[in-house]
Order: sequence, then structure tokens, then C-alpha cells
Amino acid sequence: MYFFDNASTTRVYKECVDILDEYNLNKYYNPSALYGSAVEIKKDIEKSRMEISALIKAAKGNIIFTSSGSEADNLALFGLKKAKGSRIISSRAEHSAVFNSVNQLKNNGFEVVFAETNKDGRVNEDSLYSLVNDNTSLVSVMHVNSLTGAVNNIGQISKRVKELNNKTIFHTDAVQSYGKLPFRLDNSSVDLYSVSSHKIHAPKGCGFLYIANGVKVSPLIYGGGQEKGLRSSTENAGAICAFSYASQKFFKTDKVYIKNLLIKTAQTLQENIEDLKIITDINNCAPHILCVAFKNLKSEILLHLLEKHGIFVGTGSACNSLKGNLRFAEELKLGKEYENGILRISFSEFNNEDECTFLCDKICEEVYSLSKKLF
Amino acid sequence: MYFFDNASTTRVYKECVDILDEYNLNKYYNPSALYGSAVEIKKDIEKSRMEISALIKAAKGNIIFTSSGSEADNLALFGLKKAKGSRIISSRAEHSAVFNSVNQLKNNGFEVVFAETNKDGRVNEDSLYSLVNDNTSLVSVMHVNSLTGAVNNIGQISKRVKELNNKTIFHTDAVQSYGKLPFRLDNSSVDLYSVSSHKIHAPKGCGFLYIANGVKVSPLIYGGGQEKGLRSSTENAGAICAFSYASQKFFKTDKVYIKNLLIKTAQTLQENIEDLKIITDINNCAPHILCVAFKNLKSEILLHLLEKHGIFVGTGSACNSLKGNLRFAEELKLGKEYENGILRISFSEFNNEDECTFLCDKICEEVYSLSKKLF
Repeated sequence: MYFFDNASTTRVYKECVDILDEYNLNKYYNPSALYGSAVEIKKDIEKSRMEISALIKAAKGNIIFTSSGSEADNLALFGLKKAKGSRIISSRAEHSAVFNSVNQLKNNGFEVVFAETNKDGRVNEDSLYSLVNDNTSLVSVMHVNSLTGAVNNIGQISKRVKELNNKTIFHTDAVQSYGKLPFRLDNSSVDLYSVSSHKIHAPKGCGFLYIANGVKVSPLIYGGGQEKGLRSSTENAGAICAFSYASQKFFKTDKVYIKNLLIKTAQTLQENIEDLKIITDINNCAPHILCVAFKNLKSEILLHLLEKHGIFVGTGSACNSLKGNLRFAEELKLGKEYENGILRISFSEFNNEDECTFLCDKICEEVYSLSKKLF
Repeated sequence: MYFFDNASTTRVYKECVDILDEYNLNKYYNPSALYGSAVEIKKDIEKSRMEISALIKAAKGNIIFTSSGSEADNLALFGLKKAKGSRIISSRAEHSAVFNSVNQLKNNGFEVVFAETNKDGRVNEDSLYSLVNDNTSLVSVMHVNSLTGAVNNIGQISKRVKELNNKTIFHTDAVQSYGKLPFRLDNSSVDLYSVSSHKIHAPKGCGFLYIANGVKVSPLIYGGGQEKGLRSSTENAGAICAFSYASQKFFKTDKVYIKNLLIKTAQTLQENIEDLKIITDINNCAPHILCVAFKNLKSEILLHLLEKHGIFVGTGSACNSLKGNLRFAEELKLGKEYENGILRISFSEFNNEDECTFLCDKICEEVYSLSKKLF
């Protein structure tokens, strides 16, 4: 099996599986119980929080564990206390967990406006800055675009937004950048920072929202008061500890290795397939996401042909494989000939050069045979 | 180790651990991806949904998987579309996931009123019915009280509520009753039904909300549109499938065995400890929860003394071990001498008679030595 859909989800590290097993079979106590063995579990959670905090230099805020990146995004966007009717700025290139949430906020009476998108998937900074006004409560811009791998310079963007209106809160969906790009929260102006566990070889079912000190957020889930009252529910300690383990391991892995697989794949495809559009700007992208578009070809058909060779790729964010892509193709202004041909190839440390060679061979083979049928 | 805190959480079935491992290591595909292996995962989730639906006869509605029972409660209470300012009826005996949510709804402009509580922890039905008026949008009454094990006859209550106002939606937190008491949704008037995974030997991080056909609920989490658009996030397929497996196994286990352990423990303690109050009505309780109160004794001290013998018990809902108990002690009108002495002993199929004998011996031993110190 050749798994090239690592932006969608990842194989879990064996050590994380062992951690989860240990919590499910032996350390299964409710972390809120009063006896010592339960208190130990609570301490394990706090240790995980500190470990993750250290990785992203989050000392100027708190990490609130959630059940997913989507929940973290929703907690940020809906939970943030903001003046009724105020302006919220985002972009149409956002993951649907942000895009659909801000659209819901529009239904709730907020003024929601979208900055333009560059053709590699980055938010257009000038367009974004022109939208910031005195009434702007929130700006939400993802760190790495989930379809193209384009990197938004959120350090710079968050600072500039604050210069334009220092009361504006800056949120970033960092689901595709966490551990993949170096980033320190302590010398940035980022107030809210969402992450998902299963994109970095940790089990599904975990995520977190970083909330900078002083930023007022209300819970989405009320109850027993876990997670400083911001996310009630019995803590999923095993998943949290596995997430922390995976984070520490993943932050240390060689991203240049992954990026080199990406560059080689991009070059091979470019050399061998006429009219291929490389959407990803390989000089300014995350190490793991390569997005290309084929001319007059439905990538969904290609995806199924590749599957027969044991190759798994994506056609965009798996969360909105069908609808989301259309929105995005329009945004990238690819033109009619390319907009159904978007393919996302995403890499991990578990891939190697031989696999990439095999992938390129099979893509070329199938694209040639499809184009023969076409003419 | 003698684990008598099974109402708080449970040891995970080994088979569930194996299921989870399989999904984390091999079947880790994003269920929303387009390739066949991912589609298979989606089918596994749908199979789990059908299996759970069959156990509770949920054909007249949909099961929406969540990350926890608290999330399911919150989705029900906040998500339900209800007229602004309408009346919501609940009780002070509810789990904090309901109690704190309805209090938040009060802050949001709803009229929230509480029915009285009987001294075993059941809701007072006459008090409840007297509160239902034309303006009542929602009634939320738990199936089994999490501290005392008292059973509310939600079949009867939901029917009577509908007779009084057929537009009122009935929600029940079934976290402590699911699989423990027989219940069919298809011949009840229950509209919303919340369940948690980790109370029945499934891993933490899963739950569901049953929503009867025609009941309009908005999501708490927006995004990729998973779970029929009602709960976006990459599905935690392993946890869902493990939850379904545990449900099927748990529904078949012998509840009489568990109930007999409870009865025997209650009798032994009653016979040996003067002035002990058995709060649980053992003729009308769930098979697994025994709640007692000691006179002039702090149960927290007893809990820590028992811990030295390897015995784990609770002092109430672990989710609100400290604050929640005070609210509840007042509600049960135990009197000052007893209100700090509440102990919850909760059983599972993993306990046996010898363990219960050891538990009773040690409780008696420690209570005697504490009372000697007292006088």
C-alpha cells in the first residue's frame, strides 16, 4: 500500500497505540476522581499540556484539549466573546471547519467578509489588510492551506492586523502546519491557535486550542468543568498523552526528507506530463502537500485508477471532497479545463523515494491512457 | 486493585482495545476520503450506527456520534431549536453536563425551572408535571441518577409531558442507564437521548445523541459535514466501532449478577454500621450504583483510607466531586450530619463477591476506627 494522503490523516505511531492501550486497560481512572491513582492521570494530562506548550512556546496562554481540530476551530470562532454585529474577516481558502463556522456566524448577525486568495492558495495580504476596520473583532487565517500546502505568514499577518486594530483577535487554524513548520507563539500576535492530533501520527479524537492570556472564550461544552471550565467531558487521557508523545517525536522528524520527496515528485510529474499545472508553490509550501491539476481530466477518475495500484491520494480536503473543491477551484481561478483535475499528493516520514517513483510512474501511465481515450 | 467506581468510568474490554489498535495501525484512512479503503471505514461506522440503533430500537430517529456524553447532552440542549424565552424544565439532580447547560440557557434568555427531587434522587413527577405549561419547549430528565442510581421512569414521564404539551421536546441523559436497564426508544416519547461510551467498557472519547425524526437540532461543531451535518470532525472510526462492540457485549451481560453484588454490599454495610443511611432505593435502582451516607463522617477521608487497601470508590459524580455533591446533598435533604458523608460504590461485571466482602470489611474497619477517634 502506498499512502500519499497524509494531509487527510496519518498512520498512528506504534508507541502511541501502546500508550492508548495502557490507559484503556490499566490507567482508565476518571481523571476527576479523588483517589491518588486518578490524580496521577490528571498529572499525566498536565504533563502533556506542558510538553506541548514547550514545543510551540505557548507560555503566554493556555492549551485547552478538545476532541478534534474542528472542535478547536469552532471553540475559537463561536466561543470568542465579540461584539454583536462586529466584522469577522476570513478567506474562502479556509478549511470548512472555519469557512462553514464563519458563515454560521454571519447567520447569527455578524458581518463576515472574505479576503482574496492568491493562485497558490495563500490569502492575499493586501486584500486582507484593506478589510480590517474599527469594527473588526476577529480575523481567521489558516497557517498552511490544506489543499495546496501554501504557507500564510501568520507571524507577519497577525502583527499587521494588530497594528491596524489592536482590539482585533487573530485566530489561525494550524492543523496542517503544527510540527511541520517552525513556529513560536510567544513572539507572535496569534491569540487563538487550533491543532488536530491525527495529522501527526497520533490517534484520532484529540486536538487543542491555544488561547492567549486575556482572550475571553466561552465553552462550547458545559458540564463538569474540565479543561479550566472551557471544555467539559471526562478527559480522554490516553489520547492526550499519545498526542503529546506524537508531538514530541514528530517535531524532531526530518522535514527536509519529506520536502525532498515532494520536490522530486513535482519535478518528475512536471517533466512527464504535458499541460500539468503545479498549483503548489514549492518555494513557499509546507513540506508535505503537493497539489497539481490535470488538464481536461477528472481527478476523481484518476484517484480510483491509482487505487487499483494500491496508491491512495486525495482530491482535496477529505472533509469536503466534493463541495469544498469546487469552492476552492473557483478561488484559485484555474480555469474550466483544470478545475475538475485537482489532485493532492501528501507525504509523511513513512514514504520513501521508491514509493514516489512508483507513484509518478503510475500517474503518468494512467494519465496517458486516459488522454488516449480522450482523443 | 478493587475498582468500585464503575459509574465514574470503566475498564475497557480487551476486544475494544484490539479494535482501536486495528483502526490506528491499519484502517486509519479518513472516512471521508474517496478511495475504496476509506469508503470501507465509512461503512464500518454506518454498521456500528445500525448495531447500536438495533439495541435501543432507534429506528424512528438518527444516532449522531459525538466525542462524549457531555457533548451529546450539550448538542441536545443547545442544539435543539426552541422559541427564544421559552420554558425549559429540568432538575437539580441532573449531571452537571445538563445542569450547567440549562443554567447557561437561562443566561441566554430562556426561562429555566427545576422540578423537586425525591429523597432517593428521583425527580418528583408531580412537581415536574405541574411546571409544564404552554410555553414549555424542552424537558430534560436523566434516566438513572448518577449519584444514587435512582431510576426515573422516563417512558412514563415523557408520555405524560407530551400529554400536557405535545410540542414539548423530551431529552434524557441516559449515560448511567444505557445497557444497564432495558429501554426501547420506539415505543417511548423520548426525542433526545444522550449516551457515553466509557461507562460500558468502551474507550473514552465517544458517545452519541439519538434524535427522533422531525426534531430540529443545529450543530455545535460546523465543518466538513460529517454525521449528517450535525457533528463535523474526522470521524473517530476506531472508537465508534469499539463502542458498538462494547454495546453489544454489554447489553448481553448479566445485570442480575451486578445487582446481587450491590444488594449484598448494601445489606452487609447496613447490618454492620450504625446510623448508616442507604440513600439508594434498592427496589428501584440501576444495577450498578449504591449510594450511602455516613453520620458525622467526611466520606473524602474514608475514600483515602480505603485507597490504602487498594479500594477505589467515589464520593459522587467524578465530574464535579466537590461542588456537585453539595448541590446534591441539599437536594436530598440528608441533614447536616450526613451531607459530608456521601459515598458512591459502583459495580461492574469485573467485580465479584469476594471483592465485595473485602470492601465491606475495610469500610467497617475504617469507619469504626474513625468513630473511635471522634469520641
